[in-house]
Amino acid sequence: MPKDGPDLSPPTVLRLSEYLLILEQFSKENKEIISSRELADAYGNNASQVRQDIFRLENSGRLGQGYSTWELAEEIRRTLGLSDIRKVCIVGIGNLGKALATHVPFSDYGMSLAAAFDTSPNIIGKNINDLQVQDFTELSKTIKDKNIVIGAICVPTNVAQSVCDTLVENGVRGILNYSRIRLKAPKHVSIQYQQVICSFMQLSYKVSND
Amino acid sequence: MPKDGPDLSPPTVLRLSEYLLILEQFSKENKEIISSRELADAYGNNASQVRQDIFRLENSGRLGQGYSTWELAEEIRRTLGLSDIRKVCIVGIGNLGKALATHVPFSDYGMSLAAAFDTSPNIIGKNINDLQVQDFTELSKTIKDKNIVIGAICVPTNVAQSVCDTLVENGVRGILNYSRIRLKAPKHVSIQYQQVICSFMQLSYKVSND
Repeated sequence: MPKDGPDLSPPTVLRLSEYLLILEQFSKENKEIISSRELADAYGNNASQVRQDIFRLENSGRLGQGYSTWELAEEIRRTLGLSDIRKVCIVGIGNLGKALATHVPFSDYGMSLAAAFDTSPNIIGKNINDLQVQDFTELSKTIKDKNIVIGAICVPTNVAQSVCDTLVENGVRGILNYSRIRLKAPKHVSIQYQQVICSFMQLSYKVSND
Repeated sequence: MPKDGPDLSPPTVLRLSEYLLILEQFSKENKEIISSRELADAYGNNASQVRQDIFRLENSGRLGQGYSTWELAEEIRRTLGLSDIRKVCIVGIGNLGKALATHVPFSDYGMSLAAAFDTSPNIIGKNINDLQVQDFTELSKTIKDKNIVIGAICVPTNVAQSVCDTLVENGVRGILNYSRIRLKAPKHVSIQYQQVICSFMQLSYKVSND
């Protein structure tokens, strides 16, 4: 997997990954069976959407009135290919980069944080968990040597595009962009935007209109 | 506004806010007119979706073959009610909370960061920009006194629900949740989930299937 699996759209993949976290939470609370309605209530969408998403999986763990929480979680993991290991790097170890490196549970979801880079002498050489922050000048070599395919860009806006270019030149195909500019990259590269201010704008609109 | 404005769905609001950042970027680059196609290319969707979204605005700044970049940006600001000021607080000033407090340009988008809270004696009393981190025990009073309506939860998972409860009890109606659990809140409260690991899973799926 996932080569032979269903070809899922990015929004479906996102919802499945979010269902996975909910199922894991239910599993920890010893809730062994879950209905599409309960999953939809926890997620904040509707049961028909949930059923449609689950229908894309090969084996949904359906049990009469509901789904086995554990089996459904496992099937999502299998479908998303979370048993393979994809290597990730973080560029820019300010507060945000440090937060990602410290708190994102990569290894629980088929990823491994393989490198972290910065340009500041105060940060280079420091340890985050078991990882030593490297000098940005080592980025190209490290990405190639370690076969890193995903990069998170946590650098100031004015250098984001050049960091993106360097990542792409060295084989990175998935980028999580925390800078506020749109990045230019070849078509084979996927870019996810994490523009926190936009989430705040969404909330701001919502609280003003309810 | 936005009381008399169109009633926009959350995904539309999110896209409009993201178009706004793109338009501002084009504006800085002195690009005065933009086509729906160019906006779609920069955003990563299609021109028909862009036109449909812009159609929801009262005055789109349409000029023959394109839109005035500046007028379209202004109209999005007006529609999203970004000239009113909504007050925001951040709970939990670890690396992530500090990153939000330091880097999110609240005041450029109709918001004001009015308070930050933590429980650690090492963090309470420290300044972030012009804001002094307060003791978490002052949260209820501060939220009411300052009329804070939006809160970002950047605390460990095991206390996220109780922080959410306290925010809601004191009048917060919009919550940005960085913890990994689904939060329970009354229907009038909007919760945005920022589950960074899910964005990484999306990228991981994409790089494995292309």
